[in-house]
Amino acid sequence: MTDKLVLHEFSESGNCYKVRLTAAVAGRPIERREYDLMKGETRTPEFIAKVNADGRIPVLQVGDRFIPESNAACYYLADGSLLIPTDPFEHADMLRWMFWEQYSHEPNIATLRFWMGWLAPDMLSDLQRLQMPGKRAAGNAALKLMDDHLKDREWFVGGAISLADVCLFAYTHVAGDAEFDLERCPHVVAWIGRVKATPRYIPMDS
Amino acid sequence: MTDKLVLHEFSESGNCYKVRLTAAVAGRPIERREYDLMKGETRTPEFIAKVNADGRIPVLQVGDRFIPESNAACYYLADGSLLIPTDPFEHADMLRWMFWEQYSHEPNIATLRFWMGWLAPDMLSDLQRLQMPGKRAAGNAALKLMDDHLKDREWFVGGAISLADVCLFAYTHVAGDAEFDLERCPHVVAWIGRVKATPRYIPMDS
Repeated sequence: MTDKLVLHEFSESGNCYKVRLTAAVAGRPIERREYDLMKGETRTPEFIAKVNADGRIPVLQVGDRFIPESNAACYYLADGSLLIPTDPFEHADMLRWMFWEQYSHEPNIATLRFWMGWLAPDMLSDLQRLQMPGKRAAGNAALKLMDDHLKDREWFVGGAISLADVCLFAYTHVAGDAEFDLERCPHVVAWIGRVKATPRYIPMDS
Repeated sequence: MTDKLVLHEFSESGNCYKVRLTAAVAGRPIERREYDLMKGETRTPEFIAKVNADGRIPVLQVGDRFIPESNAACYYLADGSLLIPTDPFEHADMLRWMFWEQYSHEPNIATLRFWMGWLAPDMLSDLQRLQMPGKRAAGNAALKLMDDHLKDREWFVGGAISLADVCLFAYTHVAGDAEFDLERCPHVVAWIGRVKATPRYIPMDS
C-alpha cells in the first residue's frame, strides 16, 4: 500500500493524539494538517463536503479516501501489526475496550477536559454546567473500572500492549487536565508508565 | 470453536437486538438470558462481579468468558463471515460507522427512545428533560447524515451488507418509537427494506 496518509486534526485533542501515537508505535509515517476547532475550521462547507460530513476531527486521509472516527483510523494504521491481537476472543475484547472508551470514558473525561481547558467559564451554557457533576461521577467511575481491571494485569487485553491500551491512554494520561485525581488509581498510574515505555512512544505535544 | 454462546440481554434494547440479528445473519446459534433493567437486575453484585463490571447489557458469554459492548459482541459473532469486509480500507470504514453509531446515533436516538418509551414522564429528571431538545436535534442530524450517505449507495460500506448496516439498523428502524420522522429520510427507508430482505433476517420481537 502506497497511499499517502494525512491526519486532519486539532493536535491538542486526545482523539487526534491517539491516531498519531498509533502511527508512531506501528511505524507508519503520516503527514499532519492542523485545523483550529475554536474558529470552526472543521465546519466549513469545504470540510463537510470533502473530509467529513459530520464536521469532526480526527479524520485519516488514505490517498483520496477518508476515515473519520479516531478508533477506526487507529485500527487502519495498526492493521497487521502486533497492536491487533489475532485470537478472535482477544480481538473482540480489544474492540470492547475501544467501544467502551468512546461511550463511557471520552464523553465524560474528554468533554470535561475540553469544557474546563478550552472554553472560558462564561462560554459554558447552563446545560453544560448542569451536566458537569454527572460527567464528573461517570468519569471517576470509568477510571475506577480501569483501575480494577488492571489490578492483576499489565495490559487491557491478553499479555501485551494492544490498540485498546493506546486508545485508552490518550485521554486517561491527561485526565488531570480536567481535575481527575489519578493518584486514586495506582494501577492506572503504573500502566501509564508502561505505555510511555513502549518502543516508539511519542508524547502528546510532539 | 465449540464454546457455548449465551447472550445476556434485555430483549427490547436495540443494542441487544443487534447482537441477535448478527448471530442470525451469520448463522451462529446463541442462547439467551433475559434481565429486567427496570428492576436493576444488571446492577446486582453477582452481575457486576461475574458478567460485566460496568453493569450493562448486552454481554456475550463465550464459554466462561464475557464480551460487553454490543458492537464488540457483534464483531465476535460475525468474525470470518461475509459481514466483515476483508479489504483493509473497507474494514476500517465499517468500524468507522460502528463507532459513529455508538457516539453520535445511539446516545441520541436510543436514549430518547428509552426515556420516552420506558420511563414514565414523572420519572424523568430535570436534567434529562433539559437534554431532550439537544438529543432531538442530534438524532435528526444523525438520520440526515445517514440519508445523505445512502443517496447513491445501497449499503454503508462497499457494495454489500456489512456489520455496519446491522449495527446501524437496530435503533434506526425503531426511531419512530422516539417520534423521529423517518419519512424525511427516504434513502434510509429504502435501506431498511434492504436489510429486512437479507437472508436469515429476524425481527426485533422474535
